[in-house]
Amino acid sequence: MVTGRNLRNRGRRVAVIGAGSWGTTFAKVLCDAGCDVTVWARRREVAHEIQVAKRNTQYLAGINLPKSLKATDDLSVALRGAGLVFLAVPSQTLRQNLLDIEPYLDRRSVLVSLVKGVEKTTTMRMSQVMADTLDLDPTRIGVISGPNIALEIAKEQPTGGVASCADLTVAQEIATAASAPYFRTYVNTDVVGTELGGVLKNLIALAIGIVDGVGYGENTKAAIITRGIAEMTQFSVAHGADPATLSGLAGLGDLIATCQSPLSRNNTAGRLIGQGYTQEETREQMQQVAEGITSVPPVLELARELGIRMPIVEQVQMVLDGRMAPKDLGPHLATEDDVPQPEQAIPDGAHEGTWRRLLNRLKGTQA
Amino acid sequence: MVTGRNLRNRGRRVAVIGAGSWGTTFAKVLCDAGCDVTVWARRREVAHEIQVAKRNTQYLAGINLPKSLKATDDLSVALRGAGLVFLAVPSQTLRQNLLDIEPYLDRRSVLVSLVKGVEKTTTMRMSQVMADTLDLDPTRIGVISGPNIALEIAKEQPTGGVASCADLTVAQEIATAASAPYFRTYVNTDVVGTELGGVLKNLIALAIGIVDGVGYGENTKAAIITRGIAEMTQFSVAHGADPATLSGLAGLGDLIATCQSPLSRNNTAGRLIGQGYTQEETREQMQQVAEGITSVPPVLELARELGIRMPIVEQVQMVLDGRMAPKDLGPHLATEDDVPQPEQAIPDGAHEGTWRRLLNRLKGTQA
Repeated sequence: MVTGRNLRNRGRRVAVIGAGSWGTTFAKVLCDAGCDVTVWARRREVAHEIQVAKRNTQYLAGINLPKSLKATDDLSVALRGAGLVFLAVPSQTLRQNLLDIEPYLDRRSVLVSLVKGVEKTTTMRMSQVMADTLDLDPTRIGVISGPNIALEIAKEQPTGGVASCADLTVAQEIATAASAPYFRTYVNTDVVGTELGGVLKNLIALAIGIVDGVGYGENTKAAIITRGIAEMTQFSVAHGADPATLSGLAGLGDLIATCQSPLSRNNTAGRLIGQGYTQEETREQMQQVAEGITSVPPVLELARELGIRMPIVEQVQMVLDGRMAPKDLGPHLATEDDVPQPEQAIPDGAHEGTWRRLLNRLKGTQA
Repeated sequence: MVTGRNLRNRGRRVAVIGAGSWGTTFAKVLCDAGCDVTVWARRREVAHEIQVAKRNTQYLAGINLPKSLKATDDLSVALRGAGLVFLAVPSQTLRQNLLDIEPYLDRRSVLVSLVKGVEKTTTMRMSQVMADTLDLDPTRIGVISGPNIALEIAKEQPTGGVASCADLTVAQEIATAASAPYFRTYVNTDVVGTELGGVLKNLIALAIGIVDGVGYGENTKAAIITRGIAEMTQFSVAHGADPATLSGLAGLGDLIATCQSPLSRNNTAGRLIGQGYTQEETREQMQQVAEGITSVPPVLELARELGIRMPIVEQVQMVLDGRMAPKDLGPHLATEDDVPQPEQAIPDGAHEGTWRRLLNRLKGTQA
C-alpha cells in the first residue's frame, strides 16, 4: 500500500536494536510507515526467523511481519546508513548495548529510546543513560512512549504515542518515521515528562492491582487513576516536566492501559498483595520482583525532598510494609477530621514550579 | 461510630429527593457522614421498606441501609428543617420535581443536584434548570459529581466526588455533609465544568463501547480516553469551565468508571453498534435510546459554532450514520499525509478562552 505517509519515508533507513515483543512490533510500525527497516536480534535464530519466515514466534506469536522487514544479528549490518536508531532493549542492559553499537554509529544519527524505566545502579532515566554513555547532544536523543501493549499494536489495533526530543524538528522527524495508519505519533519537547510518565505509572498500577485483589470495583480504580495522575504530574513538574505531557498519551494513556492490562507485572504483583500474599510470597510466585515495588522507596524519598505529598504511593508503601491492610487503601488518606479540600490542591513545594511553568507557557502563547 | 466528621455533622438535617439506586446510596453516604437524613420516595412501598426494614430491595438489592436513615413519601416531612436538599431524580423530571418541592422549601436551604444530563427540551444543564425553575441565587445551587457507580459506593468501596457551588463556603458545607469514611468529597467553584463532565463522558463511552464491540484492546481504549478527555476539556473550557475540573473526578474519574462499567447504557449501546448492529436494532435490543446517542448531534453542532474539533465524537457520528465502519474508529482521524502534531494542540477557537483562563488563574495565584 503506497500512501502519502509511505512516500514521505521513502528511502529512510532506520534500525531497531532489540527483537523482543516491543522491538519487533515497533519494527513493524516503522515498516508500515514506509521506512526501510532492519531489526537487530541478539540471537541468530531469532534474526533468521524474522528475515526468512517474517515471524517472531517466541515473542510475537501469530503475527505476520511485513515482507520488507529485514533482520540480522550483526550490529554493523543493522546500523549501516541508519539515520534513526530505535532502542528496544531491557532497561538494565541499555548502557552495555549503547557501548556495543557505538563503533558502528553514524555521527549524525539520532538515537530513540523505546525503553521505560530507570537504571537501578544510577537511578538515571534512559535518555540520561544515553547522554552519559555516548556523550550525545540532546538533539540526538529521542524517546517514544505511550499506551504500548505490544501485541495489540502488532494486531494493528489503532493507538498512538508521543515522540519527544529537545529539538522539535527532530521529534517531528522521529514521529514521521513512526506514523503508521494504526499508530499515530504526536510530538513534544518534554523528554523528562515523557520518560517519567512511563516510570511512575508502575507505582499507580501497583495500587490498582492491590484494590483489584481486595475486590473493589471501577469507582475505586477510576478515583485512584484520577488522583494518581495528579500525583504523577506534581512529581514530574517538580523535575521540570510540562504538566500537559502527563495528561497525554505518555502519562494518562500509558497509565490507563497498564492498569487495565492483565499482562502488567506491576498490576499482577499488586493483585497478589491485595489478595493477602506477602511481598516475599508475591516475589516467589512471580519468579521476579515487579519494577514498581523497587521504585516505591526511592520515589517517595525524592518526593519528600521536594516537599511533595504522594498519598497513593505512600499507601502502597504502607501496604507493602504491612502497616496498612490492603482493604484500607483508597484514593485518599482517610483522615476524618480535615476540611474539604480543593480538588487540584498543589502542595507548597511544587507550587512555585507550577506557577513558573504556567507563566512560561503563557509567554509562549503570547509570542 | 462517632468520629470527628460525624461530630461536625451532628444535628445537620438533610433531605434526599428520590430513592432510586443513586438517591438511596447517597442517603447512606450522608448518614455515614453523621447527618440526620430523610429520603423521599415517590412510591409509598419503597419509603416504607427503607423506613422499616432499612432495605431498598428493588434498587439496591443486598445492601443494609443505616439504622438512622428515615424515609417518607410525604415531601413536607422530608423537607422539614432540611438545610441541604439533594436531588436524585431523573434528569427529564427534575423541573417537575422542583415545582413539587417548592412549597415546602426553606428560603435559605441549598439545593444540590446529584443528576447528570441535560434537559432535552431546553438543552439546559441541571443547575440551569434549578435556577430557571425556582429563580435561585447561584449560592443556593450545588452539584455533586464523580465516578459514581451506585452499588459500589453502597458496598463502601472507597471513592470520591466533587461538590461544586459558585460560593466556595457553600461547596465546603455540602462536601462536609457528604464525606463518609469511604467517600471523600472535594470542592470546586466550577459548576459548568463539573456538570459538563457528566454529560460529555457519555459520548466518549459510546466510542469506547464501539471499539470494544469491534474487539480492540486496552491500548486503543486508553488512547481514546486520553484524547477524549482532551476533547471534553476543550469543549468545556469554551463554555467557561476550568480545565482542572475536567482532569479531576467529575471529568476523568467519571469517564474512566463509565468506560469500564458493563452497566453503562452508553457503553452497551456502543458495543452493540461495534458488533455490527444498526442504530435501530440497538435501540430495539436495549428497549431505549442511550443518552449519549441523542447528545452527539447537538454537541457537535455547538462545537462547530465554537470552532472546536472533536475528532472522536465526529467519528462516533460517522459510525452512527453508517459513513464509517466501526473498525475504522480510532483515537484520531486517520489522515495520512499530515505533519506530526503537538499532542495538546488547541484549536484556534478554544485558544483565546484557554489563554484568558490561564491568565485568570495566574492572577489568582499571585494574589
